[in-house]
Amino acid sequence: MYPHSLDNKLFRHSFNFTNSDKVLKNLISDEKRFENFSKKGAEVFFDYSRQLIDSTSLELLYELASINGVKEKFLSMCRGEIVNKTEKREALHTLCRANESSHPLYSEIKRVKNEIKDYSLKIHEGKFLSSNGKRFENICVVGIGGSNLGTEFVITALSHREKYLNPFFISTCDPGEFFSFNKKAEIETTLFIIISKSYTTREVMINESLIINELIKNNLDPKKHIVRITAKDSPGDLPEFKVFHMFDSIGGRYSVSSAVGGLPISLVYGFDVFEEFLNGMHEMDDYCKNSDIKENICLKAALIDIWNSVYLDLPALAIIPYSSYLEKLHFHIQQLYMESNGKKISENNDFLNYNTSMIIFGETGSKAQHSFFQLFHQGRSIPVEFIGVLSCPHKDFFHYQNLSGNDELFANLLAQADVLAAGRDENSPQKKCLGNRPSSIITINNLNPDSIGRLVSFYEARTVMAGFLWNINPFDQFGVEAGKILANEKREVLKKALNHNIFPENNKSDNYYARALASGKNI
Amino acid sequence: MYPHSLDNKLFRHSFNFTNSDKVLKNLISDEKRFENFSKKGAEVFFDYSRQLIDSTSLELLYELASINGVKEKFLSMCRGEIVNKTEKREALHTLCRANESSHPLYSEIKRVKNEIKDYSLKIHEGKFLSSNGKRFENICVVGIGGSNLGTEFVITALSHREKYLNPFFISTCDPGEFFSFNKKAEIETTLFIIISKSYTTREVMINESLIINELIKNNLDPKKHIVRITAKDSPGDLPEFKVFHMFDSIGGRYSVSSAVGGLPISLVYGFDVFEEFLNGMHEMDDYCKNSDIKENICLKAALIDIWNSVYLDLPALAIIPYSSYLEKLHFHIQQLYMESNGKKISENNDFLNYNTSMIIFGETGSKAQHSFFQLFHQGRSIPVEFIGVLSCPHKDFFHYQNLSGNDELFANLLAQADVLAAGRDENSPQKKCLGNRPSSIITINNLNPDSIGRLVSFYEARTVMAGFLWNINPFDQFGVEAGKILANEKREVLKKALNHNIFPENNKSDNYYARALASGKNI
Repeated sequence: MYPHSLDNKLFRHSFNFTNSDKVLKNLISDEKRFENFSKKGAEVFFDYSRQLIDSTSLELLYELASINGVKEKFLSMCRGEIVNKTEKREALHTLCRANESSHPLYSEIKRVKNEIKDYSLKIHEGKFLSSNGKRFENICVVGIGGSNLGTEFVITALSHREKYLNPFFISTCDPGEFFSFNKKAEIETTLFIIISKSYTTREVMINESLIINELIKNNLDPKKHIVRITAKDSPGDLPEFKVFHMFDSIGGRYSVSSAVGGLPISLVYGFDVFEEFLNGMHEMDDYCKNSDIKENICLKAALIDIWNSVYLDLPALAIIPYSSYLEKLHFHIQQLYMESNGKKISENNDFLNYNTSMIIFGETGSKAQHSFFQLFHQGRSIPVEFIGVLSCPHKDFFHYQNLSGNDELFANLLAQADVLAAGRDENSPQKKCLGNRPSSIITINNLNPDSIGRLVSFYEARTVMAGFLWNINPFDQFGVEAGKILANEKREVLKKALNHNIFPENNKSDNYYARALASGKNI
Repeated sequence: MYPHSLDNKLFRHSFNFTNSDKVLKNLISDEKRFENFSKKGAEVFFDYSRQLIDSTSLELLYELASINGVKEKFLSMCRGEIVNKTEKREALHTLCRANESSHPLYSEIKRVKNEIKDYSLKIHEGKFLSSNGKRFENICVVGIGGSNLGTEFVITALSHREKYLNPFFISTCDPGEFFSFNKKAEIETTLFIIISKSYTTREVMINESLIINELIKNNLDPKKHIVRITAKDSPGDLPEFKVFHMFDSIGGRYSVSSAVGGLPISLVYGFDVFEEFLNGMHEMDDYCKNSDIKENICLKAALIDIWNSVYLDLPALAIIPYSSYLEKLHFHIQQLYMESNGKKISENNDFLNYNTSMIIFGETGSKAQHSFFQLFHQGRSIPVEFIGVLSCPHKDFFHYQNLSGNDELFANLLAQADVLAAGRDENSPQKKCLGNRPSSIITINNLNPDSIGRLVSFYEARTVMAGFLWNINPFDQFGVEAGKILANEKREVLKKALNHNIFPENNKSDNYYARALASGKNI
């Protein structure tokens, strides 16, 4: 993968972990294992004692990190150098939560933050009202991908708190989403937040157009019911709408600490909650910048990703939080990581002959245990990342046989991690759990905004560090573009087909759209 | 994998599909490709023209199916023979939607169905009221895994329809789930449906106990607010509660056509809707029993799963429906398939040296395109299953540039399938899509109950057929059991630890639960 002799050493060393079912069982039997293979950073605890690694793996991986220069790359990203080379851009998401900076964008970010503070306060105080004079009761965030997933995760994670406004989300161009929203909320008391950096994202444009239609149909003034988050001078940056700016150097999947997350979070929970969230992120950023290569938990996590993906050839990572409030985490990390690192071309345009990003999927712990964990124990080996919350919002609400709900969840989390690692012998081979399956446990202190911020920033740092280590650019997403271009072509074929009425309604399923569309013929 | 010469032939033939990036591009350039590699069965259209197969692959796979006796196994399952050999049980889910049968369980199933019809009608007519005399407005389904996922999928898929009652779901032992429910619905107008075959499932017992507590706190009579679905003579089968029976020979993940799905679906949408759903399932069952090995789309899909997993070594399958109403599909199929086929021990107790179930994950199409599709185009090769709906509930509601929302979705679906298959050349290697990625397209006619029934039954049949082909028992789930046993042990350690107060609240994150729990020491 890298300098030849190190790559060989890593590969040779990896054979030690795949030649028996008992490797991990033996590793964890060491009394010092937990102490030596766990680490706390910025209040996030990272226990990697159940990974298929030993101290030699770690030393080799640290050497790899050092040769790669990953820490220097991370620092240069934070300083605002052009790290997104294919698009010739900086990657400035950490600036959104910095305490000070001389970077020219910093004052712009501060301006937008002040606008969010001012605007959300005025909405909460009833100084901005709906066009028929009512107080807003709901927000509906209209954005897709990076304009949606981080925000939806954070808003869900904090949903144990009191809310100023009820949050809803629409992202696809399926009208079913609007209908589902409209069954639950009145549009006359809804503020729509339309998010698109370019203001050309088709799904978002379709939804804005549909929403404007519906507002007018209900005699409501779109300008009072719609605010926009978009780039300066985009087609959506118009004086008749309230607009909050987003910036080219902050990519969608890294944008939850910008206005993209900031406005919805502030409207739902208050600007102070958003600030607390940013403080948590900043703490993790600072920790990441200042800690040594051998200490940094974000880098450790990234190195283990490389180890599992490249050297142990494990294709996936399951993100399993034991808290219903974290149920949207895997959707956010799925995009963050897979869109950042799902690439096979190096920054120097070379095709990479090693595995890069693994598949990321997930589910909350109890549900996953009663669903796909069967495969984890008796089928393929899939690395798991368990996430526990030490102190839960409802911890004194209810006890069952002297244990709180959170104690229950922790007992299950630990039981699963142990069975994955050590397996379980049974008389019947049918009942045997195979073991030797690696997992990590991450714990956060609670579900307060700063804890959630630290967790998000942990994943952001780990994602970009893994990208650096893989020699890819974690900030572009050209693979997403091709589909958009071809969809335009398909739409034109489809329009022609509809005009020629070649799809009689009843006959669609024989002929179906595909036949003509796929070939572009017959029309 | 099977008889030696055939297995070798399949492996040798598979090399033809992995030796170049252009294989699939060449295959689909054949004018007859779509015609020869697509098939309709029981109104479900299955287009596998973009899979990495040719007619030789198919012939070899049909031979494998024939040697394996998969059709005969499926028929013997339907007849009620003991196909679940490890647990010495029948697998009788198809009996739930049969029109007639001489099997002794059939009259029991009919009895329960009549009870559901009668009970849901009385609730709808207001003949059964809450304990303070109000009409029920909500149901809350309390079940986990197979007692939840199929039902939640079907209820969401039909949510374009009018509802008698609003559906809610609680499954884990996280009290956050109860709080989230309680913020949206009043418990005084809620009917709780508690589902557990054994009535010992810990998560469900915890929730029932919590709910009874809350009901009593609100001066409501638990017996009027709780109905149970459980096995005859289970600890929950008590005369003071209204009880609907479920049966040992219908496993959780196959139970959506039993009372587990039937009662919630009937309460929310009416018993006639449940019946229409069953009719669709029955149609697909009948089709499956009667169609030839070379014609059956469920078997084709299963054979392609085997081909991709075993012979092309592709580790995952992404389920991507282009309809927001199908957003819960992948959660159901994830359990159905991974819990059924995530096993490495044959029915004869042999360890299998070939891949079995792939990882299944998914997301609705527009969201996935703006999230993890980057990796599909430029990272790992992941087979995709696109699902389209020919006629959508809101098709005339809104047009954008002369196309309906559903036309938009179809244009995107087809564009993605084509780019995955053929790739896309660009001047810059950074922008190139790799292509040669296999996918299928499944279309259903609409989102009516019978169409949803056909789709669920398609996946059930395919899942068990894949299990038969892999020589595993798709009906047991012993891998789930080990975690449960160890969780009991962890709970005892945890209780002791809490009694000894070795976890001072503030110190948890250093020490954290794991330290003592993992080792069981220090206490």
